[in-house]
Amino acid sequence: MSGGTRSAGKVESPPAQDLEHEAPPGLEGVVVAETAIGDVRGLEGFYHYREYNAVELAETRSLEDVWYLMYHGALPTKSESTTFATEIDPLREIPGDVLATLPGIALVAEGAPPLDLLRTTLSLIGAAAGFRPSLDLSAAELHDQGLRVCAVVPTLLCALYRLQHGMDVVAPRPDLAYAANYLYMMSGEVPTAEHARGVEQYLISTIDHGFNASTFTARVITSTGADLVAAVVGAIGALSGPLHGGAPSRALDMLDAIGTADRADAWLRDAVGRGDRLMGFGHRVYKTDDPRSVMLRSVAERLGGSKVELATQVEQQAIDVLAELKPGRKLYTNVEFYAGVVMDTCGVPREMFTPTFASSRVIGWTAHIFEQSADNRLIRPSARYVGPPPPQPVPPAE
Amino acid sequence: MSGGTRSAGKVESPPAQDLEHEAPPGLEGVVVAETAIGDVRGLEGFYHYREYNAVELAETRSLEDVWYLMYHGALPTKSESTTFATEIDPLREIPGDVLATLPGIALVAEGAPPLDLLRTTLSLIGAAAGFRPSLDLSAAELHDQGLRVCAVVPTLLCALYRLQHGMDVVAPRPDLAYAANYLYMMSGEVPTAEHARGVEQYLISTIDHGFNASTFTARVITSTGADLVAAVVGAIGALSGPLHGGAPSRALDMLDAIGTADRADAWLRDAVGRGDRLMGFGHRVYKTDDPRSVMLRSVAERLGGSKVELATQVEQQAIDVLAELKPGRKLYTNVEFYAGVVMDTCGVPREMFTPTFASSRVIGWTAHIFEQSADNRLIRPSARYVGPPPPQPVPPAE
Repeated sequence: MSGGTRSAGKVESPPAQDLEHEAPPGLEGVVVAETAIGDVRGLEGFYHYREYNAVELAETRSLEDVWYLMYHGALPTKSESTTFATEIDPLREIPGDVLATLPGIALVAEGAPPLDLLRTTLSLIGAAAGFRPSLDLSAAELHDQGLRVCAVVPTLLCALYRLQHGMDVVAPRPDLAYAANYLYMMSGEVPTAEHARGVEQYLISTIDHGFNASTFTARVITSTGADLVAAVVGAIGALSGPLHGGAPSRALDMLDAIGTADRADAWLRDAVGRGDRLMGFGHRVYKTDDPRSVMLRSVAERLGGSKVELATQVEQQAIDVLAELKPGRKLYTNVEFYAGVVMDTCGVPREMFTPTFASSRVIGWTAHIFEQSADNRLIRPSARYVGPPPPQPVPPAE
Repeated sequence: MSGGTRSAGKVESPPAQDLEHEAPPGLEGVVVAETAIGDVRGLEGFYHYREYNAVELAETRSLEDVWYLMYHGALPTKSESTTFATEIDPLREIPGDVLATLPGIALVAEGAPPLDLLRTTLSLIGAAAGFRPSLDLSAAELHDQGLRVCAVVPTLLCALYRLQHGMDVVAPRPDLAYAANYLYMMSGEVPTAEHARGVEQYLISTIDHGFNASTFTARVITSTGADLVAAVVGAIGALSGPLHGGAPSRALDMLDAIGTADRADAWLRDAVGRGDRLMGFGHRVYKTDDPRSVMLRSVAERLGGSKVELATQVEQQAIDVLAELKPGRKLYTNVEFYAGVVMDTCGVPREMFTPTFASSRVIGWTAHIFEQSADNRLIRPSARYVGPPPPQPVPPAE
């Protein structure tokens, strides 16, 4: 097998199969697939689901309608909406035997981040339901599994949240629409229509956003033919990373630290002067207004309240301070800033901000899983070996 | 936000940030990172860990030594070996509170594939242990978490296997080395030195193998700064896909179907004639002998037995039949063929073949997680939108 010297250097005429292409770090700008699900145009401050402006969808349609759009490629007619609701309703329930294990799991992982518990318990649901490899399923079967997973995620999140806080689990109510039901299962109280709609608009606006790391993770795992839950569980893991799912709560923490609008200018100058990043400003893709932030600001203003008033004042001062102290950096308000304000105003506790993000993004992930599975090729890139040249003789064990 | 028409076509001078590069399907041959962990040279039939021929390591060193090499970049001295063993020993135990949940989980997911249960329970271990985001950890802290995960995976797999078959869990024995301990925890019997060594050589040979889909998954998830278990759980999901982890048991099923060597030629011709793929032959990267297959054949011959005799006879006839009926295809025996024969001969049941693969590959995954984390950049590729051009006006809900 070994013998002779092998140079790690380049050979003159490498055979075709070993030809390699260098990719930019982080695969930035590298087109890894074609998609008909949506896209982000960072320079224009525009993103879309299918052929529709995502913000316009969030302003005018229900979460269920947009979920249907992501799954079927077209907005539903009235009768399709009704059928879809009937289809989802029973899938919201956590299967009884899994439900029985949740208190034990919540106890063992006391104090764990809710996404870690979601990852664990959704994995269990997949194992218990006997989800087979996507490779072995028809498109219709895979679609059904996607519906089940997306429908049960909000219920799981709320059940785990309540168990972690010593409260009884609240079962879903079939008469409540998606967002109202989510707030109801979390708090035990039926929310006002305004709060339900505010959260619903946030949820719609975060269903999909290009080939972000969690969506890409879901597609890489699906490319092996693995089952749908394996892909979603991987995506949840990616979303739990601070560089991706972030922490919408951090922007709110900043508002708390500032306290009142008159203290904002000094606080912000001080923070930027120290070299701190201001939470809720700047984005890798958007170099103009983040369209999600613009929409969520108007949602926040509609909801009103002292937190919203403080947020709009701090936002303007932060933009001014950044323009003055970081000229040319083009740091605009990102989705995190008003996402936190809207969720807080609607009664979502801070620890549930990123999990709430997961509860809508799973609709996007599963749509991408369907697309990857329908025209699949194993995703298996290369790496450049840069260590000491092999093979060195293996020394005998001492 | 919307308004006006936006063409989905190309603009003449796209600003730098929106420049896109096309990548080959499946990212084949695309260099996505530099690594000092190892590499595969498909045309030469050669792969290495660090600067050593991986096969030579499997022939001459212990699993623990090679694990140490993957983590530290050098083979251990005698005293380093001793320290490493002392470090690993206590980490083999499943934490008591997690152990208590396993019977319930195994019952709920009765009949689930062992990898789905591993995914679930390892996720729980991470949540219970409060593993923090890799982004917030020192290299030493992340290294410790890797050790814990790799040490506990074999114990978890064996515990779940025994629970699924109505047997009591067997605790790890500190006096047994890695591979012997694995077989002991699975069967409850201390294996012969020959069987332990056969499995150990298989395990060493499967620790790492380039940027395969599961390793890449672990690196994508880690690139978000997520915790180590999030990345490993995603990798387990990818490995569970039939196009990656495969099914070493399928080659063995083929031997069973053939039954005796004198029936092989007719059976194989019949299968190839029908257009069936022969299990255990052909590989995406190797276009010559798979070095793992060559080594495992010699391990199998050393172990001996009727299954091994049949396998070597069938292998030769399969190669001859493929060369005759599929000329020019260069289909060589791959790792699956003798992996199954070796594991079967050493007493590993078929359902545990891919899980056994996971138990060694996790060492490779975690080494890649350390490397990604040490010099990280978020992995976020692009996609080309190919659906109907946006924005179309959103029709009002009916």
